Amino acid sequence: NDKRPLLNALAMGSVSIPPPASLLRPLETPQRLLSGPGPSNVPPRVLAAAARQIIGHMHGEMLEIMDDIKKGIQYAFQTQNNMTLAMSGPGHVAMECAIFNTVESGESVLVAVNGIWGERAAEIAERIGARVNTIVKPPGGYFTKEEIEQALVEHKPVIFFLTHGESSSGVVHPLDGIGDLCHSHNCLFLLDAVASLGGSPILMDKQGIDILYTGSQKVLNSPPGTAPISFSDKKMFHRKTKPLSYFLDMGWLANYWGCDGKPTRTYHHTGPISGFFTLRESLAILAEMGLENSWNRHKEVAEHLHKGLESMGFKLFVQEKHVRLPTVTTITVPPGYDWREITVYAMKHHNVEISGGLGPSSGMVLRVGLMGYNSNKANADKVLEALREALKHCHKSKV
Amino acid sequence: NDKRPLLNALAMGSVSIPPPASLLRPLETPQRLLSGPGPSNVPPRVLAAAARQIIGHMHGEMLEIMDDIKKGIQYAFQTQNNMTLAMSGPGHVAMECAIFNTVESGESVLVAVNGIWGERAAEIAERIGARVNTIVKPPGGYFTKEEIEQALVEHKPVIFFLTHGESSSGVVHPLDGIGDLCHSHNCLFLLDAVASLGGSPILMDKQGIDILYTGSQKVLNSPPGTAPISFSDKKMFHRKTKPLSYFLDMGWLANYWGCDGKPTRTYHHTGPISGFFTLRESLAILAEMGLENSWNRHKEVAEHLHKGLESMGFKLFVQEKHVRLPTVTTITVPPGYDWREITVYAMKHHNVEISGGLGPSSGMVLRVGLMGYNSNKANADKVLEALREALKHCHKSKV
Repeated sequence: NDKRPLLNALAMGSVSIPPPASLLRPLETPQRLLSGPGPSNVPPRVLAAAARQIIGHMHGEMLEIMDDIKKGIQYAFQTQNNMTLAMSGPGHVAMECAIFNTVESGESVLVAVNGIWGERAAEIAERIGARVNTIVKPPGGYFTKEEIEQALVEHKPVIFFLTHGESSSGVVHPLDGIGDLCHSHNCLFLLDAVASLGGSPILMDKQGIDILYTGSQKVLNSPPGTAPISFSDKKMFHRKTKPLSYFLDMGWLANYWGCDGKPTRTYHHTGPISGFFTLRESLAILAEMGLENSWNRHKEVAEHLHKGLESMGFKLFVQEKHVRLPTVTTITVPPGYDWREITVYAMKHHNVEISGGLGPSSGMVLRVGLMGYNSNKANADKVLEALREALKHCHKSKV
Repeated sequence: NDKRPLLNALAMGSVSIPPPASLLRPLETPQRLLSGPGPSNVPPRVLAAAARQIIGHMHGEMLEIMDDIKKGIQYAFQTQNNMTLAMSGPGHVAMECAIFNTVESGESVLVAVNGIWGERAAEIAERIGARVNTIVKPPGGYFTKEEIEQALVEHKPVIFFLTHGESSSGVVHPLDGIGDLCHSHNCLFLLDAVASLGGSPILMDKQGIDILYTGSQKVLNSPPGTAPISFSDKKMFHRKTKPLSYFLDMGWLANYWGCDGKPTRTYHHTGPISGFFTLRESLAILAEMGLENSWNRHKEVAEHLHKGLESMGFKLFVQEKHVRLPTVTTITVPPGYDWREITVYAMKHHNVEISGGLGPSSGMVLRVGLMGYNSNKANADKVLEALREALKHCHKSKV
């Protein structure tokens, strides 16, 4: 009886839950300057890539696009690592991938916490049974090499996690010498560059970074949903147990991305095809512009923004200029103001996104991100204008 | 010294890896009929959603779109479950989410394996330390209620995994009574409907399905990268240990999606904003068309395809008509032909995708998928024409 499944459904009363009314209205989305800590606005060329009809995830043309992405990441990361690819998920998936593949239950992990990302990495490592130790600074702080070395000696970790661009506090962490330090203590150096990659100098190979990842939706200006990642050495995948996640298993992923030298590439999961189209275009834009130009542009625009903020009486949250993250600026919440009121005002009256703090910096800062396509002085001026008006119109208590 | 990071990079020799030449060429992608087992072609309305400028992942409008998605999934699944949302990843992420949240290390899991998806679920459960038992049928087979009950009695699992639409073998599994059976043995019923949802009747609540998920890129015709999922009862999240993955933790996800009754929704990860735009549109199209119409269309188109195939002398791989999956048709590789040659011919000369087998069905079948937007007789005729020509032009050995 070839009608059985349908008839059975009908016999059971079939569809009893009606289509939802709100879904039958047209999709509407506003136009905004996404000048928070990300996602950033997506340029027209990248949106055009998103609008392309898709192809199969294992079609030859798709594998070539993935090869282009791999090369684009190698350029953006300044690495020759063969084990370089994009995760099919947001930055958190790359963070879990890095930790799930290099850490086994019971192993020692050292995490530098100077904002939310270190907290997150520690939580992820704890869940899989690692022995997690942290070194901690308040938001805005960073670590000296001596502090890091002392903790390496004390905890003998297999991996050291550091955040390059701490988007919750606005700090870009100095990198020089940390890779060597880790290696001299037989430890891998894992760097989170979600908020900084492309906006602040990173030279993966020269700086001895073993694992580096970023997200698509910050300086790269793709929609969120893909996350470039690179690993320095296949030996780090030698382990006693399988990684706890099939989806994150670099053995499978390396084959899917043609990084393991095998002649055939096997289906592992269905990659986000449109997400790979957009990431390819974002990496192409960065390659056309040149990394140094991108770094310089972010620096110039950030300095322009900082000058404008200070001239209006705002105080920058990060005191030392050389560790100010050029992509995400943190501003001390002006005394007497409610940070929420300022962000709501800017959004409502200027369509300009300004964010509050996150995690340990909650309530302490306002955050402005100008990344990639959004990183220009005209956008900085829009943010300054929105803040100027917000200060005028928002309630100020007597301090 | 505010120039330190950049100067340090320059001092180290700075950028030494040049932009890759292949990335500097324009992005090119072909137009094809994606008539394999998925992904399917994306209709213009959904591509238009992908091309929209993005908004912030926690903006009010975004949370409303997520609410619409939730309601759209409730309709598509025919469920009133509050714990209904879309994962920020492909179907595999939903499979891992289902298992990671409901199974703890050492617990018994029963998996029905009649194709690749059961194998995959077993692997995922094994990695997290479950005691996995399987019941196995060769590709094309399915399980009787007696066989399932016997295994439930023997293995006393906390969860039973079944694939509704086995896209590797072309079987749609009968569902009637299995939910009740599981519950009478104190076991959750987990159903994979990646390849069948929207194309073959599923009534989550009435059929007693505890956990159900699908993918965006099959009948729903969005690009891959989001995966609707629903859970029947919050009690299943009561557990001794945290889920091993932060990214997949339903505690966090339920809050992000406003499913936990708390007044504020907290940042968990950055969702794939464009992916949510497209999924919202896909669910709206299904709601406008109506589930029964979609089920009927898939059935009619599949029958048209089957008739055409049989009239050309092809043998359908699944013998019993009532378990033939309407979304993905499996065809026995015609004797004397190399399946690879047929798929290559159809792609090269007709821009028509026909796939080989996958996992246990490798080498045994050709697979044709006509799903959602692709499910119409004109596309079925294109596939038939491509196969007719392939039989003429491909090499046939003497059998």
